[in-house]
Amino acid sequence: MGLTDQIPRRAAAGRVDFRTEPARYRHWRLSVDGPVATLAMDVDEHAGLQDGYELKLNSYDLGVDIELYDAVQRLRFEHPGVRTVVLTSVKEKIFCAGANIRMLAAAPHAWKVNFCKFTNETRGGMEDASANSGQVYLAALNGTASGGGYELALACEHIMLIDDRSSVVSLPELPLLGVLPGTGGLTRVVDKRHVRRDRADYFATKSEGLGGPRAAAWNLVDEVVPRPTWDQAVAERAAELGSRSRRPADARGITLTPLAKERGDDRVSYRHVTAALDREAGTVTITIAGPEQDPPADAAGIGAQGAEFWPLAVTRELDDLILDLRTNELELGTWVIKTAGDPERVLAYDRLLLASSGGWLANEIVHFLKRTYKRLDVTSRSLIALIEPGSCFAGSLLELALAADRSFMLAGVFEDADPDAEPAAVTLGDMNLGPLPMANGLTRLQTRFFGDDAALAAAREAAGRPLDAAAAEELGLVTFAPDDIDWDEEVRIAVEERASFSPDALTGLEANYRFAGPETMETKIFGRLTAWQNWIFNRPNASGPDGALRRFGTGQRAHFDRKRV
Amino acid sequence: MGLTDQIPRRAAAGRVDFRTEPARYRHWRLSVDGPVATLAMDVDEHAGLQDGYELKLNSYDLGVDIELYDAVQRLRFEHPGVRTVVLTSVKEKIFCAGANIRMLAAAPHAWKVNFCKFTNETRGGMEDASANSGQVYLAALNGTASGGGYELALACEHIMLIDDRSSVVSLPELPLLGVLPGTGGLTRVVDKRHVRRDRADYFATKSEGLGGPRAAAWNLVDEVVPRPTWDQAVAERAAELGSRSRRPADARGITLTPLAKERGDDRVSYRHVTAALDREAGTVTITIAGPEQDPPADAAGIGAQGAEFWPLAVTRELDDLILDLRTNELELGTWVIKTAGDPERVLAYDRLLLASSGGWLANEIVHFLKRTYKRLDVTSRSLIALIEPGSCFAGSLLELALAADRSFMLAGVFEDADPDAEPAAVTLGDMNLGPLPMANGLTRLQTRFFGDDAALAAAREAAGRPLDAAAAEELGLVTFAPDDIDWDEEVRIAVEERASFSPDALTGLEANYRFAGPETMETKIFGRLTAWQNWIFNRPNASGPDGALRRFGTGQRAHFDRKRV
Repeated sequence: MGLTDQIPRRAAAGRVDFRTEPARYRHWRLSVDGPVATLAMDVDEHAGLQDGYELKLNSYDLGVDIELYDAVQRLRFEHPGVRTVVLTSVKEKIFCAGANIRMLAAAPHAWKVNFCKFTNETRGGMEDASANSGQVYLAALNGTASGGGYELALACEHIMLIDDRSSVVSLPELPLLGVLPGTGGLTRVVDKRHVRRDRADYFATKSEGLGGPRAAAWNLVDEVVPRPTWDQAVAERAAELGSRSRRPADARGITLTPLAKERGDDRVSYRHVTAALDREAGTVTITIAGPEQDPPADAAGIGAQGAEFWPLAVTRELDDLILDLRTNELELGTWVIKTAGDPERVLAYDRLLLASSGGWLANEIVHFLKRTYKRLDVTSRSLIALIEPGSCFAGSLLELALAADRSFMLAGVFEDADPDAEPAAVTLGDMNLGPLPMANGLTRLQTRFFGDDAALAAAREAAGRPLDAAAAEELGLVTFAPDDIDWDEEVRIAVEERASFSPDALTGLEANYRFAGPETMETKIFGRLTAWQNWIFNRPNASGPDGALRRFGTGQRAHFDRKRV
Repeated sequence: MGLTDQIPRRAAAGRVDFRTEPARYRHWRLSVDGPVATLAMDVDEHAGLQDGYELKLNSYDLGVDIELYDAVQRLRFEHPGVRTVVLTSVKEKIFCAGANIRMLAAAPHAWKVNFCKFTNETRGGMEDASANSGQVYLAALNGTASGGGYELALACEHIMLIDDRSSVVSLPELPLLGVLPGTGGLTRVVDKRHVRRDRADYFATKSEGLGGPRAAAWNLVDEVVPRPTWDQAVAERAAELGSRSRRPADARGITLTPLAKERGDDRVSYRHVTAALDREAGTVTITIAGPEQDPPADAAGIGAQGAEFWPLAVTRELDDLILDLRTNELELGTWVIKTAGDPERVLAYDRLLLASSGGWLANEIVHFLKRTYKRLDVTSRSLIALIEPGSCFAGSLLELALAADRSFMLAGVFEDADPDAEPAAVTLGDMNLGPLPMANGLTRLQTRFFGDDAALAAAREAAGRPLDAAAAEELGLVTFAPDDIDWDEEVRIAVEERASFSPDALTGLEANYRFAGPETMETKIFGRLTAWQNWIFNRPNASGPDGALRRFGTGQRAHFDRKRV
């Protein structure tokens, strides 16, 4: 394989491929030394995902972030002994300059939005590792962290800034580019680091940023360390943060083997997941196959199967598919979700995972599944679940139906096709009752029945029992339960209708309805902040020919329509 | 005065005037019968605020909503004996068709956004009256309520729908117009009425809406009543809702006398509030004068002074000024806020209000002040408070500085201008500690110190003591405290800099920073939902020449860019 083949550049038909591995990284150096891993940014300015820009000063594009995502995942699965991840830079005087501005300026609106969504998810994944994996992220800013570079640090639990009289932290997006920091910066500054809002306002308008003493006084960083003692201080802090972790020292990781995938123009196939793309209808039909075998007997068996273990394998495939379709198939606006297999086996795997979740590997798999379903929740596609005979919407796979905007469950069977089939059933299991919360902190079941405690209690009461269409509809677990006579027509209308609506309005509708109830820092980032950023990205003051984003670096000032909206 | 003079149409220089009174209403009929008021919609289709559209089927524009706002306010102050407000329609078969679509289609982006903001505030004000005034709103839908018409009903505590085989409730914005319901509908459907999200999704895509039985089964309405028993059922429900109210039956209202206002191109003056408009700099300098006299001795004195009572008078003026500037002065992007007067007197008025707030009138005044400051929080203008000698930032007026994005407090005095002046002081009072919460449910002080309990406790500890600049800065109550030498330069840079930034990015920044911490239904409506709607309003799929909003009613289908963003 030649060198250029190793860059995660756009694959055939210009598609972005999210699969990579450390040997192919162009932008990061990952090293592991006992309980401390170092993830050092060293962006290759000539290895951008697209042409037309150079990734100077450790600025990043989607390709850089794909590698970061891969590294964070591998650390969790392949290096269970790691307790602290030190995020730093190989370059002198610069930690990271944030998202590449020429890339942003040239990118279409949808690309910018998609890019920000993925980087947000990756940063959320780092916080999830700190909180739930015992792999705590430490930002060791050995140089300036500006914009998205500082936002990367904000996703870490502890921020150290070198005191060299030149290194600063900054959020210069507003003054320089006329947009907002796009990866959660505003929210994390006030909601996570508790910087006072008037100071946060000052900080976000000061393009040159703040240096050590003031940055520390305002809690923008946790400590400022002189260069002579830098290495030692970082090592000490890494050890200290790691000492709080309960990661087992002697655990052996599993290998995230290359994901087998066939990608065509109208079909994406993995081992357990397939997707049929219908460009005419604007839909993708995704089918997730349940396990073909019974689960192993215990946690040791999970480790022995490694990446082949069905829940892990299917989650990796679904994760990759979501990213692929989101990035590469913008015009396929409706995802129809099906499952096929034995629901009892799905529940058996769920039970094994939950019984083993005191162990690091089962814990990782459950959290990975949680994060993957969270991706679905923030995916700007209409999700319709079809529950038919032969499906296995039970426990962890039932979450797919609960994540959908609407679900249809066949009452009875398809009389012509298979009159002797067993009618479809759905079964709630323990996986639906806690381990897979949404970004709002509630389970999908709790969100579904928000404010209706009786309905929630009735559903919980039914856990463990296969429910036919009538029972599932009665309990509110599915939207509609048509019979064979009405099925085709009802489903067809729902899917066709969806394709006829404004894609933008659907995105806004779904972004609001999927998150009933409470908000968290995460939903504020994905809902409130992202929506404002999308609006700003779309405005002439940013993206028009005279807008700040397009004018940056040209020597010309942006021309603003001064009307406040 | 001729008939046309009575319409709250655009005043001189095309400005919108928010002042009106029942005798001038063109669109509503307000009647009071003991404890029950009826607010009946009867929109005059020829009396739109602008030309180019007809307000058919009780559709509304800003002019209609200005009257609604006025009526809600007057009911609270002028009719304290009212316990239930029945919202209904004079027209046959139609309650309200929502915002006028031709008006929306023709309106510039800023107008749409501003219009939605005000209508949101008015509906929030109805909920505030139900919750805090003992004036409970009852929606008596004697005909179809579609779009904003149904959203108006959602702002009521109880929704009755007539069962006449034709009347429905609907949210047809998405299927018909390619936008979202703009006044909180999506959020209220799931978060207030607890409609299941998949049903809510179905409802919001079904342009023809849902009739009685299903609307009731899904909790979109509370009850469906046949026509023959309609009047009696409404009367019974009104009585029942009113019976929960603690409104005094024998209270005498005060009159909200016409607000004296001089409005010029570069100056707005009321009795206590003045605003100097600097179009060159893009700023407004707002000065609020403290009370000229000591407060009356007791609650009876408040009633005797009525609309002249300083806190009520100053709040009415500030409220009108905010609405005027927001709507009519889009290019004045920074509001510089000053006060002038005796801080002790401000605190004395605050004490009287809080001591009297068991009584209906003081209670109303405090809630009105609360709502007015909430308007400030969602105003898309940069707010900078200047605290100088002679100012009275104490208690209720200190909230202005706490609402600001930044505040500057002079350390010492202006040596040249007035060397013998008393240096400025700020004083926290009980008004800062609870009665004036923001939309997020926290006080501005709690939001300011979100996550920093020690700082919050220290500030509370200092309540009641006048604090000089050093002390205020130390406690974190002001952003910066420059002295005479640095003052002009620092303030000038802050204000000029603000005018140089992207107005859109500032709006997004402020909308995020002002609401640190928890979210409520109200912040979800103003933050999450509004931001998505603004984005959609700005997209070609809605507002472009081929967009759904522009194509509506032309017989042509909208042309959508099908890319999902």
